[in-house]
Amino acid sequence: MRLDELAGKINAELVGDGAIEVSGVATLEAAQAGQLSFVSNPKYAKQLLTTNASAAVVSTAIKSDRLALLKAKNPYFAFRQAVVLLHGFRKHPHAGAHPATHIDPTATIGEGCIIYPGVFIGPRVRIGRDCIFYSNVNVYDDCRIGDRVIVHAGTTLGVDGFGFATEMGVHHKIPQIGNLVIEDDVEIGANCSIERGALDSTVIGRGTKIDNSVVVGHGTKVGEHCLFVAQVGIAGSVTIGNHVTLGGQTGVAGHLTIGDGATIGAKSGVSGDIEPKSVMLGAPVLEIRRYRRAAAIFKNLPELLERIKRLEGLANVEAPPEPRESES
Amino acid sequence: MRLDELAGKINAELVGDGAIEVSGVATLEAAQAGQLSFVSNPKYAKQLLTTNASAAVVSTAIKSDRLALLKAKNPYFAFRQAVVLLHGFRKHPHAGAHPATHIDPTATIGEGCIIYPGVFIGPRVRIGRDCIFYSNVNVYDDCRIGDRVIVHAGTTLGVDGFGFATEMGVHHKIPQIGNLVIEDDVEIGANCSIERGALDSTVIGRGTKIDNSVVVGHGTKVGEHCLFVAQVGIAGSVTIGNHVTLGGQTGVAGHLTIGDGATIGAKSGVSGDIEPKSVMLGAPVLEIRRYRRAAAIFKNLPELLERIKRLEGLANVEAPPEPRESES
Amino acid sequence: MRLDELAGKINAELVGDGAIEVSGVATLEAAQAGQLSFVSNPKYAKQLLTTNASAAVVSTAIKSDRLALLKAKNPYFAFRQAVVLLHGFRKHPHAGAHPATHIDPTATIGEGCIIYPGVFIGPRVRIGRDCIFYSNVNVYDDCRIGDRVIVHAGTTLGVDGFGFATEMGVHHKIPQIGNLVIEDDVEIGANCSIERGALDSTVIGRGTKIDNSVVVGHGTKVGEHCLFVAQVGIAGSVTIGNHVTLGGQTGVAGHLTIGDGATIGAKSGVSGDIEPKSVMLGAPVLEIRRYRRAAAIFKNLPELLERIKRLEGLANVEAPPEPRESES
Repeated sequence: MRLDELAGKINAELVGDGAIEVSGVATLEAAQAGQLSFVSNPKYAKQLLTTNASAAVVSTAIKSDRLALLKAKNPYFAFRQAVVLLHGFRKHPHAGAHPATHIDPTATIGEGCIIYPGVFIGPRVRIGRDCIFYSNVNVYDDCRIGDRVIVHAGTTLGVDGFGFATEMGVHHKIPQIGNLVIEDDVEIGANCSIERGALDSTVIGRGTKIDNSVVVGHGTKVGEHCLFVAQVGIAGSVTIGNHVTLGGQTGVAGHLTIGDGATIGAKSGVSGDIEPKSVMLGAPVLEIRRYRRAAAIFKNLPELLERIKRLEGLANVEAPPEPRESES
Repeated sequence: MRLDELAGKINAELVGDGAIEVSGVATLEAAQAGQLSFVSNPKYAKQLLTTNASAAVVSTAIKSDRLALLKAKNPYFAFRQAVVLLHGFRKHPHAGAHPATHIDPTATIGEGCIIYPGVFIGPRVRIGRDCIFYSNVNVYDDCRIGDRVIVHAGTTLGVDGFGFATEMGVHHKIPQIGNLVIEDDVEIGANCSIERGALDSTVIGRGTKIDNSVVVGHGTKVGEHCLFVAQVGIAGSVTIGNHVTLGGQTGVAGHLTIGDGATIGAKSGVSGDIEPKSVMLGAPVLEIRRYRRAAAIFKNLPELLERIKRLEGLANVEAPPEPRESES
Repeated sequence: MRLDELAGKINAELVGDGAIEVSGVATLEAAQAGQLSFVSNPKYAKQLLTTNASAAVVSTAIKSDRLALLKAKNPYFAFRQAVVLLHGFRKHPHAGAHPATHIDPTATIGEGCIIYPGVFIGPRVRIGRDCIFYSNVNVYDDCRIGDRVIVHAGTTLGVDGFGFATEMGVHHKIPQIGNLVIEDDVEIGANCSIERGALDSTVIGRGTKIDNSVVVGHGTKVGEHCLFVAQVGIAGSVTIGNHVTLGGQTGVAGHLTIGDGATIGAKSGVSGDIEPKSVMLGAPVLEIRRYRRAAAIFKNLPELLERIKRLEGLANVEAPPEPRESES
């Protein structure tokens, strides 16, 4: 595709020769002549001095004499548009439901869905149009799935919640009579476990994207356009707003509320409600700047202890015995 | 079912009109006339003022003029009994082993088991009676499974332990000649990985319930009636007593012992033995009140540092340079 | 097998009667006459006083009058050799690809591979010789797998990376046109998710061993002979050297570099580059001795606070109000 044509289609400003042709995309390091690359962060812009790419999608502030530039306000999105135009999405090896699937006769599946081998779809499940279910996905009974939902291999939807009533020390299973509702345009990674509600529905809102090995507990309501990075674990009965980002390995305790637009950094532990638009980090989570200041002092606790000892020496008070290194 | 009949069956004290009929259960918010709901925590009792439920199972201290109450000493268990009576457990779409399973001819499976499509059961596996194995469960050779065991979709039982002997920097696989023993009434969530022993058996004791995406290492012995919440990871050769609760995302290092009745909060890191009945939290774990006090001071480390600086100023000693924010 | 013959084959020094025959291996507690056991740590050597084993592989410093010893410089590796000689590896229930696999006609699989039921292998995948793919493994299109690679049940290879370009609050999927390359002699546990590259290849280097439920992000390059313990999560575009060990549940943020021979303890959070041969622990990670000292003081923060208050009292300055226990 000619660069001038591509620039028009991805809504970018062309700086360079519009007659150059590009046939595909590659990283700055790997790109060869005839390929398009990408750089948005000025810190990586020096790689433009050595790349063999014929052109690059860049942010508006970046300049280069060596190759043609496609400048865009949102260069990552413009680059994504170029990848779609030049490469497209995966061509599936079959259409519809592969014969080696196990779809209950009471389930309904919309037009245009691709169901890979080994997928199990239980009784009364309803799946919308143009969904992709990769191999060995499991869908328990009564789940409701919207349109254009992508579910990656090995993921389990609508599994029973972890609900037991304990009597005399024995845990008795509570029938999990709710279901799971996944709205349109959701994508879920591999090996995730999304529980059904105990009494009502677990809900994953429209456009939310979930990475691999994420667990969502029973009855939790997730809003629209959230991003949950790999290995996030969310307990039951949590309410999560729209546009919430949870970093990898973060955990959220049960019955909490996380407000719209909140961002929780990786490996955090959320055990209280989170205000909308908060940016939090740590276990337990703190406002991110406070967490970073506290973590910096944590690192220096040995020196802090020495300073206290010096003050005690000056004040002529006896220091208590040394703390021993933690055994557990 | 009439409330007076239900009260008798779930061993609850009826306060209200026994002739009221309930046909199902729902949350306080969603319940309609003719439905039964539940509240045990007095903090949620105010929802009784607005619910449309015809009746609710409650703890003995809760009162209401608006709807009939079924009072129980263990209201959660009484409610569970009501859910079982009014809804029952899942009706499976087939009986026995589905034809699309892969069961080794040397494996034996007891009466009343339901084996979903895509399940693989390896050589010499023995499975008791009335078990449920959901779709795409994997059972390696020689596992021994008791009666009434439930295993959710995508879980792997008896996988090789992570055992390698390193010689000259190369990791050589050690044949994992042990097996996995799962006792009666165990339930295991989706996408779990329970390893076989290297030389002997990994054991999951009677009545223990395991949530999704939990990993149990080779040779670990888990006692009876434990609860492991989602994403728990237990290394190899650990000994866990009876009635132990591990919160979500908690990790336990190898070769440790956790005593009967211990409770470890979510996201904890256990790297030493734990006394029976301890209640612990944190990474590394501390007694829970000590952890909470320390974590509260952690949050205020910036202020603590200021207080030390002020004391240094008063004592006329020079403060060391500021700690920098941690880079990693 | 006679002990003198075994000693020769595993390159150990025999102390005792070479005519003794052993037929298998067992733990010191479980071993019976005619069995071989193992102890390398002198702390467990007292079990030699009570074991019924006929012989044990031990480190050179350990002595016993009760049973024959096979002394080796690397006793764990010598014991592994004995397990291989006496027990061998798993005998698989079938040869080649089981009929209940789903292998795309454009995929190629080398000689000697064992492919269990339920495995899905996508278009243009290339698999080398003598690999073992356990049940319900999923391999996305274009992956390249070396020789002698073992992949345990339920694992997903080459799944799409978590790549979205956000425009006007909506996350747009970026086609993941890279692939996954797994080199020779890699072993991957159950329920792992290894992503394909967005534009180039994700690489798992020769001899690296990965435990259960590990996630590796798109475009990450892992070196040779690494060990990743269960539930490790590595983000995208990370560069990991050779002989790197990551403890269980450790997370690594995107675009970082971890040098050769580094060891990161369990449950750590890596958010900066790591020097070769570092030994690190904590979240955020610190050099391990510093982390342990800081963690020991963390445990004693309540006492530290009291010491500061006492100094403030002596200096006659007013203490600020008590920090409250963290709510979240």
